[in-house]
Amino acid sequence: MNLILLYQEDFTGSRRVRLQGRRCEHAREVLKASNGRTLQVGLLNGKVGSGTVVSTSEQNLELDVLLEGEPPPPLPLTIILALPRPKVFKRVLQGLSAMGVKRIILLNSWRVDKSYWQSPALEPHAIREQLILGLEQSRDTILPSVERQPRFKPFVEDTLPAIVAGTCALVAHPLAERPCPAEIKRPVTLAIGPEGGFTAYEIEEMTAAGLSPVHLGQRPLRVETAVPALIGRLLSPS
Amino acid sequence: MNLILLYQEDFTGSRRVRLQGRRCEHAREVLKASNGRTLQVGLLNGKVGSGTVVSTSEQNLELDVLLEGEPPPPLPLTIILALPRPKVFKRVLQGLSAMGVKRIILLNSWRVDKSYWQSPALEPHAIREQLILGLEQSRDTILPSVERQPRFKPFVEDTLPAIVAGTCALVAHPLAERPCPAEIKRPVTLAIGPEGGFTAYEIEEMTAAGLSPVHLGQRPLRVETAVPALIGRLLSPS
Repeated sequence: MNLILLYQEDFTGSRRVRLQGRRCEHAREVLKASNGRTLQVGLLNGKVGSGTVVSTSEQNLELDVLLEGEPPPPLPLTIILALPRPKVFKRVLQGLSAMGVKRIILLNSWRVDKSYWQSPALEPHAIREQLILGLEQSRDTILPSVERQPRFKPFVEDTLPAIVAGTCALVAHPLAERPCPAEIKRPVTLAIGPEGGFTAYEIEEMTAAGLSPVHLGQRPLRVETAVPALIGRLLSPS
Repeated sequence: MNLILLYQEDFTGSRRVRLQGRRCEHAREVLKASNGRTLQVGLLNGKVGSGTVVSTSEQNLELDVLLEGEPPPPLPLTIILALPRPKVFKRVLQGLSAMGVKRIILLNSWRVDKSYWQSPALEPHAIREQLILGLEQSRDTILPSVERQPRFKPFVEDTLPAIVAGTCALVAHPLAERPCPAEIKRPVTLAIGPEGGFTAYEIEEMTAAGLSPVHLGQRPLRVETAVPALIGRLLSPS
């Protein structure tokens, strides 16, 4: 937690917030917050700034906050992710949020186990929990959106072309001929398949929707490795 | 397991191997191997090829193997990693092995908790287990080397300059002025700090040893995200 994320309901005055639970414990036990200490804070979907500890107790931590800064710029990248198995999904989601991806589309695919769509990890509060952890890690405040697309064909044929328009649109595919480009200076749409990859038919459909298949070498990688590897490659840090 | 890794002791004849335990179970239960089926196999530190199932039983799987291919090319990258906490270390190690890194140096740093060096995750068999999982994932056979350098200063001052020589040498540092370059076509030495980063003194010492500080944007990332992001960025897939 490199930033304590605040919510409107934490405010007890215009600049005064009261924290309880996880954030209070973290501030006290990890950050060793005592009166007068300044902590990095940010308002969900708002500005970032500092919070000075004004009182601490067993259950509460009160901060006087000043929110004047902008959160880090979002990544101009939309990710379309074949739904991974739940345990992996949680970690990947947190990583996407930390890297600054703001639009995440979960897609069905032939090799996605149908049971994954019923996982508790997909419930809104579970998704939000991982996104928040990612924001706290990377000192961001802007909550990403997560959409579900459990039907491959209608999504790819009817919705994907409009998402792709005007972007550098890529689908990661170990059998592609072209290596994945690096450091793209314009918005990117990136599709990443399940363990085992998209099927040939799925790649064909995505190609028809405007995505170019690209590879990252001949090694099949786990989703949790491939996702940051591709994003780290594509991004253009300023 | 995209490749079944074989060891010399599995051979019962010049081309015949007998598998038991984890690999046998995986072949039977996940790959649904039955007589006549062909599986991808590779010999540890040797060639890759195919294994045709010639007999199966509850406890054993016998294969007739032909090893003629080369494993995927290694990444020309030496990684110097501030020792992460044990749970993260395991995952990162497996990912490094899967991505094709062949030399991994574990380094101490001010922000590395001393207890991490006593973790069972650092025992040779535990390290080997994660490396093997990475090789099986990426259809590789060449076991990476893992060195421990629990003393920062003597390593950086006396040993590091020779490792760095002739390579593009970088240290990931969120406060660096220069963004991390992409798609480097020559050997790379890459140092990655602990959660919280290397200290200013450590960055100074590494700079003196020939490494250039580079950043990947202003977001602090977890080690398990930063490692594949940096490697995916630097590599030059052919």
